[in-house]
Amino acid sequence: MSKIKKVLIVGGTHGNEVIGVHLIEKFERYQNLIYRPSFETLTLVGNPKAVAAGRRYIDKDLNRCFNFQELGNETPANSEYEYQRAREIKYLFGQKGQKPIDVTVDLHSSTANMGTTLILDNHDPFNLQLAAYLSSVQPMLKIYSSAASGRNQDSLRSLGKYGFGIEVGPIPQGVLYAELFQKTEALIYAILDYLEQYNQNNIPPMNRQLTLYQYVGTVDYPRNENGEIQSMIHPQIQFKDYEALKSGDPMFLTFDGEVIAYEGASTVYPVFINEAAYYEKSIAMCLTEKQQLTI
Amino acid sequence: MSKIKKVLIVGGTHGNEVIGVHLIEKFERYQNLIYRPSFETLTLVGNPKAVAAGRRYIDKDLNRCFNFQELGNETPANSEYEYQRAREIKYLFGQKGQKPIDVTVDLHSSTANMGTTLILDNHDPFNLQLAAYLSSVQPMLKIYSSAASGRNQDSLRSLGKYGFGIEVGPIPQGVLYAELFQKTEALIYAILDYLEQYNQNNIPPMNRQLTLYQYVGTVDYPRNENGEIQSMIHPQIQFKDYEALKSGDPMFLTFDGEVIAYEGASTVYPVFINEAAYYEKSIAMCLTEKQQLTI
Repeated sequence: MSKIKKVLIVGGTHGNEVIGVHLIEKFERYQNLIYRPSFETLTLVGNPKAVAAGRRYIDKDLNRCFNFQELGNETPANSEYEYQRAREIKYLFGQKGQKPIDVTVDLHSSTANMGTTLILDNHDPFNLQLAAYLSSVQPMLKIYSSAASGRNQDSLRSLGKYGFGIEVGPIPQGVLYAELFQKTEALIYAILDYLEQYNQNNIPPMNRQLTLYQYVGTVDYPRNENGEIQSMIHPQIQFKDYEALKSGDPMFLTFDGEVIAYEGASTVYPVFINEAAYYEKSIAMCLTEKQQLTI
Repeated sequence: MSKIKKVLIVGGTHGNEVIGVHLIEKFERYQNLIYRPSFETLTLVGNPKAVAAGRRYIDKDLNRCFNFQELGNETPANSEYEYQRAREIKYLFGQKGQKPIDVTVDLHSSTANMGTTLILDNHDPFNLQLAAYLSSVQPMLKIYSSAASGRNQDSLRSLGKYGFGIEVGPIPQGVLYAELFQKTEALIYAILDYLEQYNQNNIPPMNRQLTLYQYVGTVDYPRNENGEIQSMIHPQIQFKDYEALKSGDPMFLTFDGEVIAYEGASTVYPVFINEAAYYEKSIAMCLTEKQQLTI
C-alpha cells in the first residue's frame, strides 16, 4: 500500500460556487485546520478570474478542461482562459508537475437538492473504502458514482491519483448558506482524518455495506423546434434528488400546464434536478441506478 | 377618476430571473391570456442581451438606470448598454414616449424567501387599494413598500404613472420553479382583472385592513479591513423573511463560528435576506417596519 503524500483541496473551480472559495480562504488563514502529520495538504482557488467576476467561468467551464489530449500546448483551438488555467494547474499539481497530487478534493455546490454528496469517478477499492468510511461517520452522505459519465476524463479532480468531488445543495449560485458551509467543512475534516489513519495502517471500523448512485445518463428539458425550453421540472420531483422515479411518474410540466411523465422501463434515481448551470448543457437532471455494494 | 389605458408587463429586467422571461414569451404566444376589454396590455423583455447571456446585466443593473436626470442623452458617462436600453424603453413607454404607460408590472425573482411579494414605491391610494384587493384574493401575498428606499427614482417600474414589482422566491438565479411560475402568472391575472373592474367603476369588495412592510434601511455583511465578507447569514434567520427580528437575535455567523446579534433597539422585519445579487451592493438584507393600514 503506497502512502498518501500530497492532498489538494480546491474551491472556486466554478467561480459562483462560493462556499468552497471561502473555505479555502479559511484554510489558508488557519492552516492548522487541515494539517495532518503524515501528508501535506495544499489549497487552491481553481478559477480566480471567475471568482472575481462572480460567474461559473469566463470562457469555458474549467471543470471540463482537463482532458489532457485536448489540453496539450496552447493552440488557437484551446487558448481560452480556462484552458490556460488548466495548463497552469496541471503544471503545478499534475502527475508530472511540480507537486504531483495523490488525492484531489474539489468543492462544489448545486442548486439541486444534492444534500451532501461525495462524487467518485471510478470504483477503485481505495475510493469505495473512503466512501464507506465517510458514510459510516455521516449517515446522510450520498455517494454518487460518475464512472460511466466520462467526467474522469475532463474534470479537475481527475488531476490526482485519486479524485473526489463534494457537492452540496440546494443553494443558489453566488450565495453562502452557513449550514452547508459547515457540512462541507466537516466532510473535508473527515476525509483528512481518514487519510491520516490510512497512512498509519490504522483504518477505522466502518460499514461494509455501501449505497452507490451510479450515473446512467441525462435527460434534457422538452424543447420546441427552435431549441427553446417549453417545460419546467414538475413540482412533484423538484428537490426529490435521490428518490425513486418510476415509469408514469410526472417529470416535467409544460408552460401551458401539461404533465410530461417519465417513460423509461426501469426505476431510476435522478440527481442534479434543476441545476442552474446545466440548462446550457441541455441537462434537466442526471439519472442514476441505486446499487448496494459490499466492500 | 382617470381610466387605465395602457398596461406594460415586463420580464427579464434582470436577465437571470427567468420566470418573467418565460411568462412574457407565453403571453406573447397566447395574447388572449392578458387581453382585457377596457385597456391595452403590452409586454416587454427588459434586458434581452442579459437574458441571452444568462446574467443579471451586461454593464450595469438595468433596474437602477431609470433616473431620468442621469439618463438624459448619451454621454461618455452613461454609454453603458443598460443606459442605452433604458433610453430605448423610455422612448417607447415613458410618459412622453410613443405609448405612455399607465401601469407597469415588473416581474422579478429572488434567492431570498420573498414568497409572493408585491412591491409599491409610494402610498398613493390607487396603489394601496390594488394591494388591498390582491391581499384579499391571495391571503399569502406580502406587500412591501420601498417608498423610503429611493427606488421610485431609478427603477424600470418608475416609468409608468403607477408601477409595481412582483418578487417571488426563494429561487436560484437561472432556474425555473413551476410553482413560482404559476404563482406569478396568477398574480398578474389578478392585477389585470382588478384594473378591468377599476375601469368599469366596479371595484370588487376587499379587506379594508392592509399589512405593509415598509423599507427602513439595509444591513451589510460584516467585513474585514479589506472589505472581504467575514460572515454568513445566521441559519436561524435564513428563509425567515418577513419574520420579527428583535434586539439580541442572531443575525450573522462568522466563518469561525461566532454569532453576531442584531443590536437595533426596535423590532424589525428583514426581507431580501441573502439575495445573491445584493452581495455586490453590500446588502445582506433590507429591514422593514410592519404597519397596519386601514384603506
